[in-house]
Amino acid sequence: MDKKSEKHNKAMQKQKERVSATMAKATQDQSVVVLLTGNGKGKTSSAFGMAIRALGYGQQVAIIQFIKGVQKSGEELFFLEHLKDVPLYQMGTGFTWDTQDRDGDMAAAKITWDHAKNALSNPKYDLVILDELTYMLSYQYLDEQSVVDVIIARPSHQNVVITGRGGGSRLREIADTVSEIKEIKHAYNQGIMAKKGIDF
Amino acid sequence: MDKKSEKHNKAMQKQKERVSATMAKATQDQSVVVLLTGNGKGKTSSAFGMAIRALGYGQQVAIIQFIKGVQKSGEELFFLEHLKDVPLYQMGTGFTWDTQDRDGDMAAAKITWDHAKNALSNPKYDLVILDELTYMLSYQYLDEQSVVDVIIARPSHQNVVITGRGGGSRLREIADTVSEIKEIKHAYNQGIMAKKGIDF
Repeated sequence: MDKKSEKHNKAMQKQKERVSATMAKATQDQSVVVLLTGNGKGKTSSAFGMAIRALGYGQQVAIIQFIKGVQKSGEELFFLEHLKDVPLYQMGTGFTWDTQDRDGDMAAAKITWDHAKNALSNPKYDLVILDELTYMLSYQYLDEQSVVDVIIARPSHQNVVITGRGGGSRLREIADTVSEIKEIKHAYNQGIMAKKGIDF
Repeated sequence: MDKKSEKHNKAMQKQKERVSATMAKATQDQSVVVLLTGNGKGKTSSAFGMAIRALGYGQQVAIIQFIKGVQKSGEELFFLEHLKDVPLYQMGTGFTWDTQDRDGDMAAAKITWDHAKNALSNPKYDLVILDELTYMLSYQYLDEQSVVDVIIARPSHQNVVITGRGGGSRLREIADTVSEIKEIKHAYNQGIMAKKGIDF
């Protein structure tokens, strides 16, 4: 074995020990709340990737989308074609900067939250995705404390994935895993149009 | 209309102007390379979310996974059940810290890269996902310049999504969109076991 391989194998042995030590400590089998936040690309797509992951194991998934354009997205088209049985509820009013109608948006947010509450109290669901929920809190369309209370009181085996910029300190507190997706660069800012299958 | 609504609607009008201005500038219709990097959770799941998005529009997708455990993941099970026609090639040697075999890993990496090269030269594919490619570069299993050259020379309409920590300056340079996913916290570090449908 050459020196490079020997050095690599030793480094990997150390990494294995680190991984094993972390695994040995992670013994609590409990559901989690995952918050995907930050200004970078990848929050909604990651939530849908987790939906696919859960569905792969035969888990039951419910998806509630709070802010969405009026046009159908690629993921929505996919679910309509392949996964008709998976409930996918969308607020469907369009982006709030397009509607410019706070009262109308707020009413729509409350109806959408009712759908989320139903999923979050139904033990049938193993995973509930609350896509772009954070904006409902930052715009004060929904009351933060009520939202947090419902998430905490969910069935004990149910995982929750929340996406959206910001998110507020209470959501970060109750989340077990928080990833902040930072935009290092975005094609959009270099004059490249948003792409089907990538951006929407 | 009350004051809060009036203020909100004005703010949204300004935001609409900003969004419209960016959209007006983003007029180049060209394919993109997206790099999802950083130490936080969400890179692979986001890549699979984009696969779903692209498939929703009837696009052709090829997925090549460079580092994976020996166990089948939820996303793999999903693809085997619902999307048998989508090529999903995995290196399949297990994590490199488990094999501790640099020469064997390197040979497997080269075979896997051959599959990637085939996809990256085939105009049939609209989206090619290179999951965890970055480790192949940081371990020097693959030559960075050769990898970059093949990506640059791909069919002009083909989008590419690359995941993995690190990534190196050359990959960052040629990527049009780069998101760095930062771990703010992870359930794992609080003693909570990795979860099916969330972590794998």
